[in-house]
Amino acid sequence: MSGKFIAIEGLEGAGKSSAIASIVAHLQAKGIRPETVREPGGTPLAEQLRQLVKQSWQERVSPQTELLLMYASRVQLVDNVIKPSLAKGRWVIGDRHDLSSRAYQGGGRQLGDELLVNLKRLVLGDFQPDLTLLLDVDEETGLQRARERGELDRIEQEHIEFFQRTRQRYLAIAARDPQIVVIDANQSMTDVHQAILQAIEAKLF
Amino acid sequence: MSGKFIAIEGLEGAGKSSAIASIVAHLQAKGIRPETVREPGGTPLAEQLRQLVKQSWQERVSPQTELLLMYASRVQLVDNVIKPSLAKGRWVIGDRHDLSSRAYQGGGRQLGDELLVNLKRLVLGDFQPDLTLLLDVDEETGLQRARERGELDRIEQEHIEFFQRTRQRYLAIAARDPQIVVIDANQSMTDVHQAILQAIEAKLF
Repeated sequence: MSGKFIAIEGLEGAGKSSAIASIVAHLQAKGIRPETVREPGGTPLAEQLRQLVKQSWQERVSPQTELLLMYASRVQLVDNVIKPSLAKGRWVIGDRHDLSSRAYQGGGRQLGDELLVNLKRLVLGDFQPDLTLLLDVDEETGLQRARERGELDRIEQEHIEFFQRTRQRYLAIAARDPQIVVIDANQSMTDVHQAILQAIEAKLF
Repeated sequence: MSGKFIAIEGLEGAGKSSAIASIVAHLQAKGIRPETVREPGGTPLAEQLRQLVKQSWQERVSPQTELLLMYASRVQLVDNVIKPSLAKGRWVIGDRHDLSSRAYQGGGRQLGDELLVNLKRLVLGDFQPDLTLLLDVDEETGLQRARERGELDRIEQEHIEFFQRTRQRYLAIAARDPQIVVIDANQSMTDVHQAILQAIEAKLF
């Protein structure tokens, strides 16, 4: 049996971490022991890049620089962790993947979707998740939850319009891509988790 | 008067540093005080990336990851240093620029020139040096000089075939691009510097 790669997407505060815990428990009950990874990060080099991209700098961080660092981290994780695990038949659950760059850098930073699609194809080819779950939360609600969790990083400190553009880009891409399932993350956690597990059962089993 | 951007290219041990010193002295004698920058690096974030890309890792560094880090550093340097300096009328001399990626990652790492040209266009548009000087040195001679200078970094530790491919790609690109002047760096230092200053006079004054 071959492994599957599930990517969990959404704004900060959408509930990705608890969704991943719920998916892991669901899969374990079926005898599957999934590996969980996060982006940016997930390898020693990629974790260093995570630190660099999230910290605040005295200099302006160019949107293209931010984008390239996200992809540098992603390629390193895909080549060294995700692909080898899938090849061994393991399931992998990713806390963010390619759709985050298309939404945050393509939408939020206004680099455009064409640049993102082209860059992705250049460095990752046709690699993609078997299923992407987009936890769609109202940007005000998400930011409020993120603030309650503690200090915000460089990207999380952006103004509300940045997150509005990011959310809109997430939804616009999902509307055209049947591999992405949108989950209403403004519902109760129980309802969110139920919708997630239904999507996994419908799409992957 | 507008500034000019001169990029100095070539294998390790080609004599880039002494060439830059010679160019700086030549320009200063004309009343021009150029700024010198190096790649990867040249801004606080880009210098951190230089460290990450040159250090050795327990994990394999994917060729695409290396490429993306080089461009992340380059975009940051171009946006925050080179373009602002040129806009103020300053001359900038770069120790390596885009041609290094095309030769080392495109040729040495065998990622191909099409990928490199497309990536460059995506993130830097049509920005390019006013003049690129390629100091062409025999790969054995260059490596010998680099070894004499001290410890080699992760990329400098590659086998000789890597540097043969890199040199061949440098020369192949230069043969098609009139903006690149090839200098025979196997000559005496006096002859090399004379050829460099002649090229600068012919192309930029």
